[in-house]
Amino acid sequence: MSLLVVGSVALDTVETPAGKAETVLGGSAVYFSAAAHRYTPVRLVGVVGEDFPAEHRDFLKSMDVDISGLITQPGETFRWHGRYEGAMNEAETIRTDLNVFGDFDPALPEDFRDSDFVFLANGVPAVQMKVLDQVTGPTLTVADTMNLWIETTREDLDRMISRIDVLCLNENEARMLTGEHLLARAARRLMELKLKAGVIKKGEHGMTLATPGATFALPSFPEENVSDPTGAGDSFAGAMMGFLAREGRTDPASLMLAAAHGIAMASFTVGGFGPQHIADIPLEKVEERVHQLRAVCTF
Amino acid sequence: MSLLVVGSVALDTVETPAGKAETVLGGSAVYFSAAAHRYTPVRLVGVVGEDFPAEHRDFLKSMDVDISGLITQPGETFRWHGRYEGAMNEAETIRTDLNVFGDFDPALPEDFRDSDFVFLANGVPAVQMKVLDQVTGPTLTVADTMNLWIETTREDLDRMISRIDVLCLNENEARMLTGEHLLARAARRLMELKLKAGVIKKGEHGMTLATPGATFALPSFPEENVSDPTGAGDSFAGAMMGFLAREGRTDPASLMLAAAHGIAMASFTVGGFGPQHIADIPLEKVEERVHQLRAVCTF
Repeated sequence: MSLLVVGSVALDTVETPAGKAETVLGGSAVYFSAAAHRYTPVRLVGVVGEDFPAEHRDFLKSMDVDISGLITQPGETFRWHGRYEGAMNEAETIRTDLNVFGDFDPALPEDFRDSDFVFLANGVPAVQMKVLDQVTGPTLTVADTMNLWIETTREDLDRMISRIDVLCLNENEARMLTGEHLLARAARRLMELKLKAGVIKKGEHGMTLATPGATFALPSFPEENVSDPTGAGDSFAGAMMGFLAREGRTDPASLMLAAAHGIAMASFTVGGFGPQHIADIPLEKVEERVHQLRAVCTF
Repeated sequence: MSLLVVGSVALDTVETPAGKAETVLGGSAVYFSAAAHRYTPVRLVGVVGEDFPAEHRDFLKSMDVDISGLITQPGETFRWHGRYEGAMNEAETIRTDLNVFGDFDPALPEDFRDSDFVFLANGVPAVQMKVLDQVTGPTLTVADTMNLWIETTREDLDRMISRIDVLCLNENEARMLTGEHLLARAARRLMELKLKAGVIKKGEHGMTLATPGATFALPSFPEENVSDPTGAGDSFAGAMMGFLAREGRTDPASLMLAAAHGIAMASFTVGGFGPQHIADIPLEKVEERVHQLRAVCTF
């Protein structure tokens, strides 16, 4: 089934204990696509500036991503400069230049409106809702969010959440949103928002999947080679959504298997800088890690 | 097979968001015993002062714990006063009075020396080694430790670790001991210490089990009712060791199943104050949670 992602396309500068990448391709929609395209074709909606290198556009095309929804506007592309230290659980933002992404007003190409699986990458909740206004009867809508929107646009965020099926957020955001310190409680509280599921991303601690009937959890893949966590969450979502769109399923068991694919994919993402190195990973390699992840937590 | 625990027997005062318990029975050896006794008889070595209430001694006897190694010395029993806040991941110690435990010099009764499974609860590494000097060919020796010994008695700690089979510690201690921020790396580094296994306790994030061949991990049981985390780690170890001693096994697959029992037991421990409420839990209830835990992470 068709898969749509709406989110940022960026030029990132990232520093980690493993090295530095300067002005490389980044953005949530890009990492999502690099992970998802192995499962199913991806439709991308985003905005870049006139400085966006042709090679990055070619890279997206090489993954068979439909970029007819990637518009170019006068000005510069969204730029983010971040640094990771220690356990690299959270990035310290050194500089953000929203540039053309600051006025992002997503307009879906006519033939994107029937998309079955829709991923709203982290962004202004009001903008995420503009996408929901344009899709016609999707099978599954999934949105990511962040602490900034919980703190500054809570009403819009609540309204957006009431219109989607699945919310993705990290563990501290889940605590902040629900007011519960304990993740087991936060997971249950997410279900009071009438969601089909809540996905709590926990970095090296794996993920918790809240569904109306039960709470599930998976450890992370015990990857020792972590060079750059940038895009881990978006590639997790990309593999998860790619798997679900390919299978055309949204039941809890499928969500768990999809999340395992997400964890496996993210374990590759963190092994290098930028999205290119995951675009080339054969699906068999990801499936191998899914099997290994099963062995990690089988008893 | 026989199971020995050497550790603290204490009088605890604990404050949590759920309430306060004043001068109640506590201590690592007590929580360990309350969890382990459902699996196999426990031999306990510890020290208390003359103020130790007879009812607590009766409680231990009621669990069929052999307390012939629990000696009474002039002075007061070890007292600990702690407070948990927020997610209750770590206790803030308000006051510690080691009292008679400060001079704890464990002397094993003659008929304890042949113990097959030995648990050295957290304590001075030199004292833990005195126990190792007295046991004759145990099948499995497991020790817990803490940041204090990593910081202050590192040489003794290293010597102690070189003499045991399995080391238990929490995630920050694992990072501190190995100098690795990433738990996946810390787990591998633990294996350089020539251990049979390393157990990294992660509270609401479950546990990681490092073995020479592979790293395993389990999420925690998604328990929403958390009143008091005191003793969670020791009751985890108690159920784990009780299971292993009952089965007489030490292979990685058995360690994982034993760890699942530990997680299930600990999820009961945190539900109330003090060790009494877990002593009465039928083993079938624990086994039910082991099955539920399997459902939590199956995909």
